[in-house]
Amino acid sequence: MKALENRIETDGTVLQEGVLKVDKFLTHQVDPVLMEQVGAEFAKLFEKEKITKVVTIEASGIAPAIFTGLHLNVPVIFARKSKSLTMNEELLTAEVYSFTKQITSTISISRKFLSEEDNVLVIDDFLANGQAALGLVDLCRQAGAKVEGIGIVIEKSFQTGRELLIEKGLRVESLARIGSLENQTVTFLEADA
Amino acid sequence: MKALENRIETDGTVLQEGVLKVDKFLTHQVDPVLMEQVGAEFAKLFEKEKITKVVTIEASGIAPAIFTGLHLNVPVIFARKSKSLTMNEELLTAEVYSFTKQITSTISISRKFLSEEDNVLVIDDFLANGQAALGLVDLCRQAGAKVEGIGIVIEKSFQTGRELLIEKGLRVESLARIGSLENQTVTFLEADA
Repeated sequence: MKALENRIETDGTVLQEGVLKVDKFLTHQVDPVLMEQVGAEFAKLFEKEKITKVVTIEASGIAPAIFTGLHLNVPVIFARKSKSLTMNEELLTAEVYSFTKQITSTISISRKFLSEEDNVLVIDDFLANGQAALGLVDLCRQAGAKVEGIGIVIEKSFQTGRELLIEKGLRVESLARIGSLENQTVTFLEADA
Repeated sequence: MKALENRIETDGTVLQEGVLKVDKFLTHQVDPVLMEQVGAEFAKLFEKEKITKVVTIEASGIAPAIFTGLHLNVPVIFARKSKSLTMNEELLTAEVYSFTKQITSTISISRKFLSEEDNVLVIDDFLANGQAALGLVDLCRQAGAKVEGIGIVIEKSFQTGRELLIEKGLRVESLARIGSLENQTVTFLEADA
């Protein structure tokens, strides 16, 4: 997606080998106009899949996911990274290991929001090692829901996430695919959209 | 806002004295169509204030805030409840006490995103004791930004938050004002919109 790649070039910062900071428009300050375009693009890519639910994870996944849900006219569920006070019923849970933070955390969704009737589109802001996306897929499959695909805003294609997801038979659509961050420079691969 | 009150009546659950669960459309599963209406309403209420930034807090504040930002055509900043790996620069921080969880947590925003030039609209999903909203106002004022008002999706008017904010000279606009949750029943006051 050209508008997204342009924005990464203008406002992204390569902090160190492998770390891209996009807090000016995605992960801390968010550009709602760009996110609306991102959501429209995901909706177009998956329009034939009869999606019934969009599933993402707090917090940076919410903005792209909510516009995807708006364009597909379906509810959006954001998985929690910690248990909420009012989450008193049965939960679907999965363990997610973070290579960057080197910790395992438990993510969860209330079981009542996913069923065998659901065709899910998983949305996330970043794809690197794929652990968060795999955790979300795991939650959906525990409920018997079908995962129609994964929509990623920014894919770090030099890490293993995409490969892992495709090995599991999942369709992956990334709006910006980064081939390299070497020499503090963002180099794109051809994106899915 | 009538559509919101209707939705609270249909899909909200009173768990116990003072606790309203709205995880079917706001705090866990999110209805993007309703959130779009909520954002449009906040934008209308504050259209004369020359808002330059919408500020909210992760995670449930993001959906209503992002649509408010879209309608006002301004960036949205979500304060973090924990420090992110790539937040390596100067931070504005505030302590927020949660009466329900009985813990104090530190919320933060990167200083570079707020300045004396900014007119901020603070958006949050719930107003109860007002501590989160006061924390967000504190962050904005530390940066010298002007807080034009607070937009709240659901106000628990039987708690002290609204009063505290008004005492600080802040304009509060709540789209649903709950006067009581006694006897497992939601009773509304007249809302601001």
